[in-house]
Amino acid sequence: MFNKRIKVKQLLASEQTGHEVTVMGWVRTFRNNQFLAVNDGSTNNNIQIVLELGQFDEALLKRLTTSASVKVTGEVVPSMGKGQKIEVKAKTLEILGDSDAEKYPLQLRNRPSLEYLREIAHMRFRTNTFGAVFRVRHSLAFAIHKFFNEKGFVYLHTPIITASDAEGAGEMFRVTSLPFDGTPRNEDGSVNFKEDFFGKSTNLTVSGQLEGELGATAFGEIYTFGPTFRAENSNTARHLAEFWMIEPEMAFSDLEDNMNLAEEFIKYIIQYAMDNNREDLEFLAQRLVEEEKQKPQAERSEMGLIEKLEFVLNNNFERITYTEAIDILLQSPAYKKKKFQYEVKWGIDMQSEHERYLVEKHFKKPVIVTNYPKDIKAFYMRLNEDGKTVAAMDILAPGIGEIVGGSQREERLENLEARMKEMHVPAEDLWWYLDTRRFGTVPHAGFGLGFERMVLFVTGMTNIRDVIAFPRTPKTAEF
Amino acid sequence: MFNKRIKVKQLLASEQTGHEVTVMGWVRTFRNNQFLAVNDGSTNNNIQIVLELGQFDEALLKRLTTSASVKVTGEVVPSMGKGQKIEVKAKTLEILGDSDAEKYPLQLRNRPSLEYLREIAHMRFRTNTFGAVFRVRHSLAFAIHKFFNEKGFVYLHTPIITASDAEGAGEMFRVTSLPFDGTPRNEDGSVNFKEDFFGKSTNLTVSGQLEGELGATAFGEIYTFGPTFRAENSNTARHLAEFWMIEPEMAFSDLEDNMNLAEEFIKYIIQYAMDNNREDLEFLAQRLVEEEKQKPQAERSEMGLIEKLEFVLNNNFERITYTEAIDILLQSPAYKKKKFQYEVKWGIDMQSEHERYLVEKHFKKPVIVTNYPKDIKAFYMRLNEDGKTVAAMDILAPGIGEIVGGSQREERLENLEARMKEMHVPAEDLWWYLDTRRFGTVPHAGFGLGFERMVLFVTGMTNIRDVIAFPRTPKTAEF
Repeated sequence: MFNKRIKVKQLLASEQTGHEVTVMGWVRTFRNNQFLAVNDGSTNNNIQIVLELGQFDEALLKRLTTSASVKVTGEVVPSMGKGQKIEVKAKTLEILGDSDAEKYPLQLRNRPSLEYLREIAHMRFRTNTFGAVFRVRHSLAFAIHKFFNEKGFVYLHTPIITASDAEGAGEMFRVTSLPFDGTPRNEDGSVNFKEDFFGKSTNLTVSGQLEGELGATAFGEIYTFGPTFRAENSNTARHLAEFWMIEPEMAFSDLEDNMNLAEEFIKYIIQYAMDNNREDLEFLAQRLVEEEKQKPQAERSEMGLIEKLEFVLNNNFERITYTEAIDILLQSPAYKKKKFQYEVKWGIDMQSEHERYLVEKHFKKPVIVTNYPKDIKAFYMRLNEDGKTVAAMDILAPGIGEIVGGSQREERLENLEARMKEMHVPAEDLWWYLDTRRFGTVPHAGFGLGFERMVLFVTGMTNIRDVIAFPRTPKTAEF
Repeated sequence: MFNKRIKVKQLLASEQTGHEVTVMGWVRTFRNNQFLAVNDGSTNNNIQIVLELGQFDEALLKRLTTSASVKVTGEVVPSMGKGQKIEVKAKTLEILGDSDAEKYPLQLRNRPSLEYLREIAHMRFRTNTFGAVFRVRHSLAFAIHKFFNEKGFVYLHTPIITASDAEGAGEMFRVTSLPFDGTPRNEDGSVNFKEDFFGKSTNLTVSGQLEGELGATAFGEIYTFGPTFRAENSNTARHLAEFWMIEPEMAFSDLEDNMNLAEEFIKYIIQYAMDNNREDLEFLAQRLVEEEKQKPQAERSEMGLIEKLEFVLNNNFERITYTEAIDILLQSPAYKKKKFQYEVKWGIDMQSEHERYLVEKHFKKPVIVTNYPKDIKAFYMRLNEDGKTVAAMDILAPGIGEIVGGSQREERLENLEARMKEMHVPAEDLWWYLDTRRFGTVPHAGFGLGFERMVLFVTGMTNIRDVIAFPRTPKTAEF
């Protein structure tokens, strides 16, 4: 048994002194041949190890370079230094692994840029920024499971590989075990997918919703939390080819139930991070202040990160219809001064500039927009009585844009079939989906939350590549 | 707001009477034009709704067929019938969705086979067996997150799409957006993967371990819980092409720490299901008894499902070395009577029949086998001092076989490089993996648990296709 250590987070949390502990971690700094700051990833805070002068060989001390790994045993004593209440007076010090200072790619004193850190994503977890981001990401993920478990939702693993390409949410990646050379062909020259692994053409899922509805119409309430994929050539700070999505689906629910759940859910997971990751969030708040110092005053956030999160927790999300949203835009000074690049009129799919105006300028808080024109939304959304709009909802967040997309689902078989026909969705491929409307159909609703966009919002990071461990984007699939 | 209901599980848990409730769910049975059993998926138990004779139209009552969905409001009263303490005396009854009894594919009175239910996997959640299985699956998944969260492990989402095919864990699926017709080619005729979405050839991951090690050597302890893939043509009751895996990875840990964690972990999640899903497990135990009545006495389980789980909770896993395991096999009556189909000698990769003998006949409990010959294990496993074996561990479970595979990892750069060379693993593709050994390497260890095999073990189901929502196997990717 090697792992007889106390984690630094736990050690710092107790202010007890006088006992012996073993700490293991990586060297952050070594000052005056005496003060060794060790980090073990449990927190951004280091434990200070004090080496008495003359106690250890010079040769050993020379090896205490950044990121060398050490095992230290010693007594916990009150610290005289500022910034920590306790420190460890070393009795024994062992170097587990050296780190060649010349070659180590992460020289923190050089303040590596986020762009550079993406190139060494295998090492960036060792920085304070990414330590904080990924511990917050962990907490948000755990809070998501905790929230749904407490409410009695069943966690459903919907399939990743799918033969159904009917959802129309975007471009899909092909999954295949057929070769490009000597591809099996039918007599007419087309590819013979019967020879493929699954006996048909298959893709990576863009959403687990349709299968989620199968679960909800049996268990009542389910959620998914899994990877989803888009083969879209979008090289932006908000898009990934592989990202994680949470999709709750609730039987016996309408659009208002859906909005209530989404708002409660978002507040719950933010509150959980505030309660459990306060230090990490404060670090990230400070990081954001520093980052924004590079920007002109007018472009800086009005609120700090913690303030922003508290504001979201303490205020109701604004709820407006799409029609109201268009009216607000048409009456806005921005519109009158022709500051919008894209057209504004009823029926448009709102552009980022419109959403940002609503959220960041007009309401200055998260906004739920409902009842969109049917022509810009998916076939499964419930048609409203006006015959023109559907019971959809998007939640728009300041600085991020769309963070949630959802709807009440069309539970009426005839309406659904008519809509599928209009939109050229092949009913024969979705016989199983239609069965839920044939046998005990119920009003139901659900939404999808893009997990990385939520992590962006909570951490104040600005590029989505910095909140997922190893981002997959066009021309990039490193590590 | 539509969702003003009490879930059946919650209603049955309280024995309070005299108040009014609204219940929504699906009809299970309707007897004597009077007793309506309604299920909402929160539990296998139904709430009995009592309809006073003459209170509702005959035409309405005729629509109360299996799986019709209903909304009932009424008073909770003590039940005179057996099997339940309370029932609901209906005041209002609304049919939300009809279910044509002639067409409904799931006629429970016919005792549909598990094979048939796989063909209607979109409806099988509505049976008691699959209700219980997927609620237990949910609880196990939640318990996994709870266990690691309490221990301070960071949940890491390792990539699903990967360009690294060096792990050698099995056949991989290709992920591509290149067309089969008019595939871009290099001058030498080979496929030009620079034109593919990620600018190189990519596959679906077979394991998140290598990336997990990158996390562990920064955060100390991490775990993954995500889908993994094998493009292997194995049409067995234990193999899936898409399955979920949990992979914890711990810095500052050796093989013994790894075994301790795995055993504690498995017991924790079983205990959680026992505490939170007792009714479902008792139902599944009874189901298993019924299923085994079809088998000859000698093939039936010695223990019932609940007994088996309690036995695992209350006993230490047996820990033996591979060398000891081979000795036990060589000295077994089965070997002496030539009952093994495959050869037994030091160096073999044990076959299922050998593992089953050890677990089911010899020890009759979970067994951890350690220190396998290096030639049958992966390149990243730590070489023992004997130069012949590696610090690997497999956990074998009765009735299931291998449920966990893990090892202490080779943290010594020279050893790892030598092993990669011997096994033809290209070092240039894994430069990032080797960097963890270059910069502050530490003793570390981890394992992978196949989630569906664990669900099989806990639910007593015997075919892995029955414990994942929509199984992906050769020639099958329905729903």
